[in-house]
Amino acid sequence: MNSFDFYNPVKILFGEGKIDQLAQEVPVNAIVLMTYGGGSIKKNGIYDKVLSALKGYKVVEFGGIEPNPRFETLMNAVTVVNAEKITFLLAVGGGSVLDGTKFIAAASLFKGDPWDILKRGAKVEKALPIGTILTLPATGSEMNSGGVITRESTKEKLVFGSPLLFPKFSILDPTTTYSLPKNQLANGIVDAFIHTTEQYLTYPSNSPIQDRYAESILKTLIEIAPHVLADTDDYQARANFMWSCTMALNGLIGAGVPTDWATHMIGHVLTAFFGLDHGVTLAIVLPALLREMKDDKREKLLQYGRNVWGIENGTEDNRIDEAIIRTASFFNSLGVKTKLSAYGITSDQLAPIFERFQTRQWKLGERKNITANRIELILRSAL
Amino acid sequence: MNSFDFYNPVKILFGEGKIDQLAQEVPVNAIVLMTYGGGSIKKNGIYDKVLSALKGYKVVEFGGIEPNPRFETLMNAVTVVNAEKITFLLAVGGGSVLDGTKFIAAASLFKGDPWDILKRGAKVEKALPIGTILTLPATGSEMNSGGVITRESTKEKLVFGSPLLFPKFSILDPTTTYSLPKNQLANGIVDAFIHTTEQYLTYPSNSPIQDRYAESILKTLIEIAPHVLADTDDYQARANFMWSCTMALNGLIGAGVPTDWATHMIGHVLTAFFGLDHGVTLAIVLPALLREMKDDKREKLLQYGRNVWGIENGTEDNRIDEAIIRTASFFNSLGVKTKLSAYGITSDQLAPIFERFQTRQWKLGERKNITANRIELILRSAL
Repeated sequence: MNSFDFYNPVKILFGEGKIDQLAQEVPVNAIVLMTYGGGSIKKNGIYDKVLSALKGYKVVEFGGIEPNPRFETLMNAVTVVNAEKITFLLAVGGGSVLDGTKFIAAASLFKGDPWDILKRGAKVEKALPIGTILTLPATGSEMNSGGVITRESTKEKLVFGSPLLFPKFSILDPTTTYSLPKNQLANGIVDAFIHTTEQYLTYPSNSPIQDRYAESILKTLIEIAPHVLADTDDYQARANFMWSCTMALNGLIGAGVPTDWATHMIGHVLTAFFGLDHGVTLAIVLPALLREMKDDKREKLLQYGRNVWGIENGTEDNRIDEAIIRTASFFNSLGVKTKLSAYGITSDQLAPIFERFQTRQWKLGERKNITANRIELILRSAL
Repeated sequence: MNSFDFYNPVKILFGEGKIDQLAQEVPVNAIVLMTYGGGSIKKNGIYDKVLSALKGYKVVEFGGIEPNPRFETLMNAVTVVNAEKITFLLAVGGGSVLDGTKFIAAASLFKGDPWDILKRGAKVEKALPIGTILTLPATGSEMNSGGVITRESTKEKLVFGSPLLFPKFSILDPTTTYSLPKNQLANGIVDAFIHTTEQYLTYPSNSPIQDRYAESILKTLIEIAPHVLADTDDYQARANFMWSCTMALNGLIGAGVPTDWATHMIGHVLTAFFGLDHGVTLAIVLPALLREMKDDKREKLLQYGRNVWGIENGTEDNRIDEAIIRTASFFNSLGVKTKLSAYGITSDQLAPIFERFQTRQWKLGERKNITANRIELILRSAL
């Protein structure tokens, strides 16, 4: 195990009906900005529940935070924060609303141009307090201190984070997921799965707790996926799905072990250029990346095949190939396709992406050896 | 999965050399009370390292916190806190020092008789801030908000806790364990193992993440035990041991699932009456308790046998019996005996213990059906 620091002060309130406890968690006399997305919370009743739980508070609303939340939109929210003297942010939605709200929290009190937080990784020195009500399990944003923001004008999707951006609390009520369309549930399963592999499919570091926790999440996601996607509302399946997503990216399984994140970094560029869903980009990149990086990841790929998929027989290469095939098949079984061509993207369209990676000179992966040329091989093999 | 709240704001600094970062974590201008136990930290160099890392702080010392820390001793520390106007407590030691220091933190600012915190569960409204440097992995006290205190005069060993008693930080440097005697390492392994079974060997609640995390800890403890007890200082084994102990009792594996804790409650009484090590009492009680409660715990015992010990064949009863035998054999393999008679305790000596349980009218276990009569059966079968 490597040395590490771990800190995660988010209070989790988990279970049906926990929204009713909201007023116990929001500071007395807070002026609340309630942020949300496209308005689905108005249709499924969550909006009313939240407002009812916040009776007595001054609540201002900011809706319309889009998937892959945009810098431009969030800066409009910052204007509202300042105009209304907001003291507390309550994000109600999925990862995009939560990530966007973290950015609003940081940008509202930032001295200078908030774009620097994304572009230059400028340090967040102050932030408004945040609470969240999660309605779409996927990103883990409810129990971490980071986020991803897109700038439409320059086609950039950039990460940021600060210990000041941990939510004070997050309410996880599995029933809020009942109204989600299947493709969003499927994307969420893929997202949590690949958050886990990014912290697991690297090289051995003698960290059996972290490895077994990662395998626990992967096996659970595989096991519950059909029940999550079933037509009936299965509370237990949704609850275990929600908790798996939170566990996949709250820092615990990545503490003390090497981490990869190349699939995410490449996926973000695919989203910025083609508007593909985040989960979809991950499902496309991961199998191709694992094939390309097979030798570097050999031991962990064999362990993954054995412990997650029960693959015991065959040559090492056969077992690795089978593990990767099983992974892609799992994504396909959720209705998430794993080839760029399935989304109408052709070889020609990749040129500007390759150019961006050449310019950026990123060195990705747990060994910092996934460079532009290698990304090109990965994406070509994902066509 | 059941509904739950989870909150754990302890900052963990894990790895060799992390004591050097102490001054970044202790508040500037703090007047520090450094608490410790029998003085082993003076022999193994940790004492000097801590004082050197605290250069520039006013540091007062309070040594002599004993195993199963005593109320009487800790109240002497409270006197020192008040006399020296202490503003920060730094616990350097194992679970006893950490638990004792949590009690000092609460008692120092308590209005009224601090005994009420233990005796009546009086609410802790204020507490001094605490940091810890763990030197004996076992209790998990470094990442939770509870403790256990003994009152010598009345032979009582009582639990207490408050969210105000989470350490602000805990430093976990595996090299601090190198000088530990084998029996303390063995007790620590047993303690972490049984912290885990208390939150796992109950009844199924459709919580695959929690179950698999618990199995992860149990399998890791079994796997690393021989390396932890080996004569050579094995950094990785000690690191994984330390992290397993922390994970076993930081609230995570118990969130959303039924929990037992009867083995602990019975074990505490054995320690209070006979002075047996905490780990030893657990190793004595658990196998006997599992035999007695076999029907109530049937499904989880079968799961435990299969997933932790690989027991697949035989009748259900055979598999359960084998799982319990393997558990006791594991403790024996560490040098921890699992019968009261091995510690010279006879049937006659149990009478006052049975009397205490009859008086207390405890209803223990995940189904609250482990009453005095049942405890008597359990302890008689552990003779």
